[in-house]
Amino acid sequence: MSLDQFIFEMLPEFEEDLRNSVLFDVPESFPGLKEMINYHFGWTEKTVSKQSQGKQVRPMILLLSSMICGGDWRKSLPAAVAIELIHNFSLIHDDIEDQSELRRGRKTLWKVYGIAQAINTGDAMFSLAQMNMLKLGNKISKTVGFEASQKLNETCLKLTGGQYLDISFENKSEISRDEYFIMIGGKTAALLAASGEIGAIAAQSSNNNRLALRSYGEALGLAFQAWDDWLGIWGNEEQTGKSASSDLVTGKKTLPILYAMEKKGDFSEAYQKEGSRKDRLEELINLIENDGAKEYTESVANHYTEMALLSLKSLNVKHPDAYMALVELTNLLIQRNK
Amino acid sequence: MSLDQFIFEMLPEFEEDLRNSVLFDVPESFPGLKEMINYHFGWTEKTVSKQSQGKQVRPMILLLSSMICGGDWRKSLPAAVAIELIHNFSLIHDDIEDQSELRRGRKTLWKVYGIAQAINTGDAMFSLAQMNMLKLGNKISKTVGFEASQKLNETCLKLTGGQYLDISFENKSEISRDEYFIMIGGKTAALLAASGEIGAIAAQSSNNNRLALRSYGEALGLAFQAWDDWLGIWGNEEQTGKSASSDLVTGKKTLPILYAMEKKGDFSEAYQKEGSRKDRLEELINLIENDGAKEYTESVANHYTEMALLSLKSLNVKHPDAYMALVELTNLLIQRNK
Repeated sequence: MSLDQFIFEMLPEFEEDLRNSVLFDVPESFPGLKEMINYHFGWTEKTVSKQSQGKQVRPMILLLSSMICGGDWRKSLPAAVAIELIHNFSLIHDDIEDQSELRRGRKTLWKVYGIAQAINTGDAMFSLAQMNMLKLGNKISKTVGFEASQKLNETCLKLTGGQYLDISFENKSEISRDEYFIMIGGKTAALLAASGEIGAIAAQSSNNNRLALRSYGEALGLAFQAWDDWLGIWGNEEQTGKSASSDLVTGKKTLPILYAMEKKGDFSEAYQKEGSRKDRLEELINLIENDGAKEYTESVANHYTEMALLSLKSLNVKHPDAYMALVELTNLLIQRNK
Repeated sequence: MSLDQFIFEMLPEFEEDLRNSVLFDVPESFPGLKEMINYHFGWTEKTVSKQSQGKQVRPMILLLSSMICGGDWRKSLPAAVAIELIHNFSLIHDDIEDQSELRRGRKTLWKVYGIAQAINTGDAMFSLAQMNMLKLGNKISKTVGFEASQKLNETCLKLTGGQYLDISFENKSEISRDEYFIMIGGKTAALLAASGEIGAIAAQSSNNNRLALRSYGEALGLAFQAWDDWLGIWGNEEQTGKSASSDLVTGKKTLPILYAMEKKGDFSEAYQKEGSRKDRLEELINLIENDGAKEYTESVANHYTEMALLSLKSLNVKHPDAYMALVELTNLLIQRNK
């Protein structure tokens, strides 16, 4: 069974559970709250485009992890729903915090319903996520529901910690790579690590498997972010859906930029010069490459990719097909830009 | 043992657990996140004023409820910490949503650290609340941790539902009393109801006691809000800390105002007239009283006060002193304006 076949089998049931949670877990008395959640997920449009749905990487990692550990993926569905709700709650709040007006080609929730309603809708989705994770208590065992919920909230503290650093970076001129790795460790890696580990928890698997899947998710998150930062300078529009080199123009603090800034050489000087960077883009790209920032970012991404695949190798696999599908998914995620 | 003695015994331990949770449960790597939580609680000042601490009504209700049901209040402390964190997380987000610049005589969190950091800090406190509720699983039993967490998140969905209605009322000219009661049922009553019920859950008490304490908290919340609305027009500055009659001037949609508006009589007409209401305040108070809104609001508050006390009477009491203290607390809360 290939990754595509797993996706074909799992995602429709996952989607149904996600929709049913919004429909039945949000009290009847607050139809407007449901409407806003529906809007965020793109369920209000007649035809839901692939783009507006998101990639659902985290639920797939969770469900496959649980299968690899010998669990019944259908019993793990509430955890996958919970993880997807947490991811989306954080997107809603991030969009307000970053003042982003568009997401997946549509107006962001706050842009349509205002900041007050969007903050509150995010909060409602956060509670909904918690309720779904607790459903494992009835589907599997109280202990599983309890442990998965603990892991979820530890993870959310890391998420908000990463987001706190990300916001604070905007007003800071010098950021070390150490700080950067702590930031993406919270913002990108923590939820992917939780997706793997909670899959193992739901399968009542060994500590070895829990640890392996957590390490896998962490490394995957760091590799993913390093490639994303690479694409932000050297990717083409087709790959990123954004205009190329945009990170150098907007001044976003990404890994290659921080690396080159630390060198305090020609790039650092040119980058901090006043005036638009758009016209000097070619020069800046040359200078950042001269500092070795391109190779450095690639080496970080490759290192964490290897770490992720190595972590998978230490698993005690109960379902080889699911294992192969997770390897396939990992390669897809990390190598999309090669 | 009187209420004061219970407060004297319980609150210092409660405060210590609350502070320890912020200190130890928020990861080391994010000191700024801790700093903002500390600021919100007024712990950054050298002398913490009584005013900046808040009233801690909910933790007291929870701890007393658990004792009444025969539980060990010390084992219920994590639940009291969780409830107080939920209350404060919602205050932080509400202040952004209402654009309130002051709380308990100090600048609100968003006013000091910006909207982005304040949203995110609220989210961190939400996770912290969840982690504390789950601690019941280690202190008492997995089932208790599980059930209390379920109740907490059901409650949060009601809270956000109530807040959704409250925000939507601002852009609506006509609001029925039915809608109003659904709104305060979520916004004010739900968390008080949960405080009582989770006390019973922590004590592993009977369904009868769970139900009685939930009904008690619900009725208390509605009575409390009705009196608060009454004070918004007929209270004096000493009682409310705000200028008297402010609700009629600001146009806040409170119970007496909605009641009189529904009459579509002289008050309704005068209230909707253009121009400042400040100069016509005496006339408006006369008209709203002529419509019977003062008596109506008093009758609602009295009705729910009786309901709250009646609910307490149906309890199977294991600790008479704690019971008397809860009755005393209830009278203090509801009769503060008489």
